Amino acid sequence: MVTTDSPNGLDQAPKVGLIGTGQMGTAFARIFLQAGRSVTVWDIDPSRCADAVKLGAREVASPDRCVAASDLTIVCVTTYESSESVLRKDEVLAALSGSTVLQLTTGTPDDARATADWMTDAGAAYLDGAIFNYPRSIGTPDGHILYSGPKEPAELYAPTLSLLGGGVEYVGDDPGLASTFSNALAAAFYHVLVAGWLEAIAPALDAGATPQQLQRLFKNVTMPTMLEAFEHFALQIEQNEFSEPEAPISRILEALDPMPTRLKGLGYRTDLFDTTMNYLRDATDAGYGEEGFAGLLQLLRHKE
Amino acid sequence: MVTTDSPNGLDQAPKVGLIGTGQMGTAFARIFLQAGRSVTVWDIDPSRCADAVKLGAREVASPDRCVAASDLTIVCVTTYESSESVLRKDEVLAALSGSTVLQLTTGTPDDARATADWMTDAGAAYLDGAIFNYPRSIGTPDGHILYSGPKEPAELYAPTLSLLGGGVEYVGDDPGLASTFSNALAAAFYHVLVAGWLEAIAPALDAGATPQQLQRLFKNVTMPTMLEAFEHFALQIEQNEFSEPEAPISRILEALDPMPTRLKGLGYRTDLFDTTMNYLRDATDAGYGEEGFAGLLQLLRHKE
Repeated sequence: MVTTDSPNGLDQAPKVGLIGTGQMGTAFARIFLQAGRSVTVWDIDPSRCADAVKLGAREVASPDRCVAASDLTIVCVTTYESSESVLRKDEVLAALSGSTVLQLTTGTPDDARATADWMTDAGAAYLDGAIFNYPRSIGTPDGHILYSGPKEPAELYAPTLSLLGGGVEYVGDDPGLASTFSNALAAAFYHVLVAGWLEAIAPALDAGATPQQLQRLFKNVTMPTMLEAFEHFALQIEQNEFSEPEAPISRILEALDPMPTRLKGLGYRTDLFDTTMNYLRDATDAGYGEEGFAGLLQLLRHKE
Repeated sequence: MVTTDSPNGLDQAPKVGLIGTGQMGTAFARIFLQAGRSVTVWDIDPSRCADAVKLGAREVASPDRCVAASDLTIVCVTTYESSESVLRKDEVLAALSGSTVLQLTTGTPDDARATADWMTDAGAAYLDGAIFNYPRSIGTPDGHILYSGPKEPAELYAPTLSLLGGGVEYVGDDPGLASTFSNALAAAFYHVLVAGWLEAIAPALDAGATPQQLQRLFKNVTMPTMLEAFEHFALQIEQNEFSEPEAPISRILEALDPMPTRLKGLGYRTDLFDTTMNYLRDATDAGYGEEGFAGLLQLLRHKE
């Protein structure tokens, strides 16, 4: 339920509940309490509430009481299984009716959509989000949290959620969307960008480059160039127009073709490089050879 | 030959020759002329010298005259084949004796080393470099050029070369080293980082993310996180110590294992993601499962 006793209107001081007070939940409690908000906390392990309580949060004995005491309940636990085992119980479902829940647990878009279904059946407004940073960035300009779900509660609680960081952003009404973003960044970051960088620098390290030199070049040369390229790509994707006569895929393919062979001859693994070259070849075969690098997306993008 | 008529000493005002006055060579001419340097130019297509001449460069009729008129001759043509066909001729070889050449043509480390061999036989001091930016960045803090080869000429001409940008740097005495760096950054940037990003964002685009949203997240979330990770990796690589109990490879593998399968189920290609997961599996099999992501390098790095 939404409180009406705030002199400044509904969206000025919603009461916040936190289910899950690990490091992240505790960071949330700290920020909300510093902003003078009422904060109620519950964790399956009561000892984890101690820090939030010291900061001024009120601890309750069960998750239903946490929901009942709050306008907006934020769930921040390890998995959707934990979240469901804690919340999908009669007494909590009863308390959820008329309440808003934002789940920030890590999972898949399908987890988010499935949870939206039973939460909505219980009468809750359900938002689902993804956190992109460590607890230490919460409440700073570097705090990045995306959330998605029905627009009305998203707008109502936007001023409250914006306390959590400079990069708190509503991304759309599909409750699985924030998780889709999160998975995309995880795939790009941990599993492609980073492995790709390691594969690429191995020969330079053996040739005498120092890790610090390569790191500096990454920062000063690769990152600004990537940013420029991705800005250009974003425009091309938006316009669905990939022509790029000066650096078409076919020419990039030709220029780079000898590199993996040379590196393999020196005994290096080039698995990621080979895979990228296959993409460039497939794009050429599919007729995108005269387009720029972002034209690859036409090969990768699923359209129904 | 090195001029001795400068009142401020040898390294204050070497005469510069430029062989190849395309956009890059012309940008070099502009910067050297603005610094009051004597600049001699030659290009196989004389019309390409026009801009440099307008800026004050002296055009000569043959490459041997360009070398003879200069202390430091910078070669900036399309390929090592072009460079060799222009320079490996009796009259040029004669002029090269006692001169210093810096080649900034794009090629492989082996191209650089092979050229070093015949240039050195001709009595030239040979440096080889790689340019990491567009002509518009030459002479600015964003101008990045790496060069390698014998230390003595590298140090002698460092003040001259530093005019070309804030990121001009001597990287070591192997003439193939600058090219090795360049290949590493090219592999990482064009062929892995960029393709990996495109593969990763395709599902998010189809789920309703806009290219601009993803671009903004790349800039504000992924880039700073990558930078932080690579700084950490550089230290680990330097110390050859990869332990990371909080985020070991085995746990990353476990957390990400369902993602490519889910994406494939939706009809997406996950070639790069699969390749990265294979690396993580191979690293676990090789006994690096309890190390952090940079531990992968032990799998990728060639040690003789």
